[in-house]
Amino acid sequence: MSDKISVCIVGSGNWGSAIAKIVGVNCATLPQFEKCVTMYVYEEMIDGKKLTEIINTTHENVKYLPGHKLPENVVAVPDLIDACKNADILIFVVPHQFIPNFCKTLLGKIKPNAVAISLIKGFDKAEGGGIDLISHIITRHLKIPCSVLMGANLANEVAQGNFCETTIGCQDIKYAKTLRDLFQSQNFRVVVVDDSDAVEVCGALKNIVATGAGFVDGLGLGDNTKAAVIRLGLMEMVRFVDVFYPGSKLSTFFESCGVADLITTCYGGRNRRVAEAFVKTGKTIAELETEMLNGQKLQGPPTAEEVNYMLKNKGLEDKFPLFTAIHKICTNQLKVQDLIDCIRNHPEHM
Amino acid sequence: MSDKISVCIVGSGNWGSAIAKIVGVNCATLPQFEKCVTMYVYEEMIDGKKLTEIINTTHENVKYLPGHKLPENVVAVPDLIDACKNADILIFVVPHQFIPNFCKTLLGKIKPNAVAISLIKGFDKAEGGGIDLISHIITRHLKIPCSVLMGANLANEVAQGNFCETTIGCQDIKYAKTLRDLFQSQNFRVVVVDDSDAVEVCGALKNIVATGAGFVDGLGLGDNTKAAVIRLGLMEMVRFVDVFYPGSKLSTFFESCGVADLITTCYGGRNRRVAEAFVKTGKTIAELETEMLNGQKLQGPPTAEEVNYMLKNKGLEDKFPLFTAIHKICTNQLKVQDLIDCIRNHPEHM
Repeated sequence: MSDKISVCIVGSGNWGSAIAKIVGVNCATLPQFEKCVTMYVYEEMIDGKKLTEIINTTHENVKYLPGHKLPENVVAVPDLIDACKNADILIFVVPHQFIPNFCKTLLGKIKPNAVAISLIKGFDKAEGGGIDLISHIITRHLKIPCSVLMGANLANEVAQGNFCETTIGCQDIKYAKTLRDLFQSQNFRVVVVDDSDAVEVCGALKNIVATGAGFVDGLGLGDNTKAAVIRLGLMEMVRFVDVFYPGSKLSTFFESCGVADLITTCYGGRNRRVAEAFVKTGKTIAELETEMLNGQKLQGPPTAEEVNYMLKNKGLEDKFPLFTAIHKICTNQLKVQDLIDCIRNHPEHM
Repeated sequence: MSDKISVCIVGSGNWGSAIAKIVGVNCATLPQFEKCVTMYVYEEMIDGKKLTEIINTTHENVKYLPGHKLPENVVAVPDLIDACKNADILIFVVPHQFIPNFCKTLLGKIKPNAVAISLIKGFDKAEGGGIDLISHIITRHLKIPCSVLMGANLANEVAQGNFCETTIGCQDIKYAKTLRDLFQSQNFRVVVVDDSDAVEVCGALKNIVATGAGFVDGLGLGDNTKAAVIRLGLMEMVRFVDVFYPGSKLSTFFESCGVADLITTCYGGRNRRVAEAFVKTGKTIAELETEMLNGQKLQGPPTAEEVNYMLKNKGLEDKFPLFTAIHKICTNQLKVQDLIDCIRNHPEHM
């Protein structure tokens, strides 16, 4: 039995494969890690061949990250339990709706001292309404601590090895160094903070703000107005965390998971793009998703809805006028032209 | 003698004229202000007529803000002392190089209890090197307190009445409400903070960061890298204020003067644009200024130089690797391709 740290990547999409490039190299070179990294891959047939076999022979995820070689020590495994059973660190990077079922499958089948880290942006709907953090779901089901990794990290650019930063939110300092060593590379720079909930919540709320930024673009209101909406969105993110996940630090919002990811999303993201089209075309969000996203769904509008449920429950809609307005615009309760009226007397201006 | 507050706008360029639209309306309607607002206008002949006469008859600054009517209670005055002598509030909004001479002219000619507010972005070179804040120069010369107003406020968009926010930095709380009332409108929302120096310094340092953002664009490094450079620039701004103007609050950098103005400048500003061209064409900054800016000068490169002087003096270049690299790239001491090498081991990542 080795006492080296064994790692499993649960997921093999675009982001999972990009991170596998970094994690694979680190496990191959750093002495504290077991060299072999397992990667759970949902088995599919590609041109008559199994995707796991393609990955394990060509070392390329031809479906989700074509054109990039994965390190040879990353081994695709089609069975979830097989992939995870020996892991000390489980890296979750699958669409969030799979998480509850994955956890049920894994319960009792993983090492009792394993730790998890979630790379999943966005959050789940809580039963009865509101939001549930993915890291909380993992911890609740699997009874293991779960850190998070979030930042301005477009998967393709990470895979290309372009320089970027990321934030790990890790509540227990004893895992901080190991997680940092596992993910950091010359061009993927890691800052670890202990504000795990704030880090994770930023990754979801930014999509609401980006929807608002897209409305401003669609209305042609200019750079000043867009900057104001982004800033007020950031302030509502800070306030939201303060109300629902108290105890976080303002400095966390200055990390890559906060201001950097927000900026990138408000300028380049698809929530912004579809929201702009929403204004310009008069079509519904659902119609635009079909037309523009090839069947994928936006995260901003449903997140705005779930957040609005929480705000309404606490009688806090008027303390979050931007989040509230964006939700009401997405659901046709408010005209997009009324966006600015809603934020003119923002609590930040009082 | 009225006991109403009398206001003078010192300057009538693009930004001065835009702000005159707001200040004029407020002075005409709010009871605490003297209705008539004087505006110092550098006299020029436009098609055989004096600019002051044109403004006072047509209520349009045809040279610097054509197409916008100024409120009729804004009165153009060609003599600086005449314009300022009865003012309780002096709004300085002229190119910063004029400030020392203006102050000399005004010394002893203004009300002893007058207060100033500077809308001038950027700062002056201190004698012997380093930077001198415009508000400090005004206070030192005129012996009156000087607040500042900074934000994501492109003048033309403010003149159009598009919604935006701004930040007033005011160290003495007793002036805060009056200054806010003077500038705030339905679409120009004011937040007053007491961190005056930090507010002013943000307005200058952002241009260094925008130069770096332009280098990233020129190198084609993508959204992740640009987000990282903007964020590290923000962190160096925070650190710079902490070292040279200590006592400021982290929250000030979340105001419009901080993160909002930075974002706008790093995406839309001319420092970014010229820096991108610097990489793509291989021409010098001076050549590009001539070609692209119609004789105007960039603020990023000289600000980077003055800041570098201060950092070098304190042996702090390695604590500000981004500012340092940008200065060295602008002055051909470093290749732009080495930008990322300089920030890879940023103190923020330690």
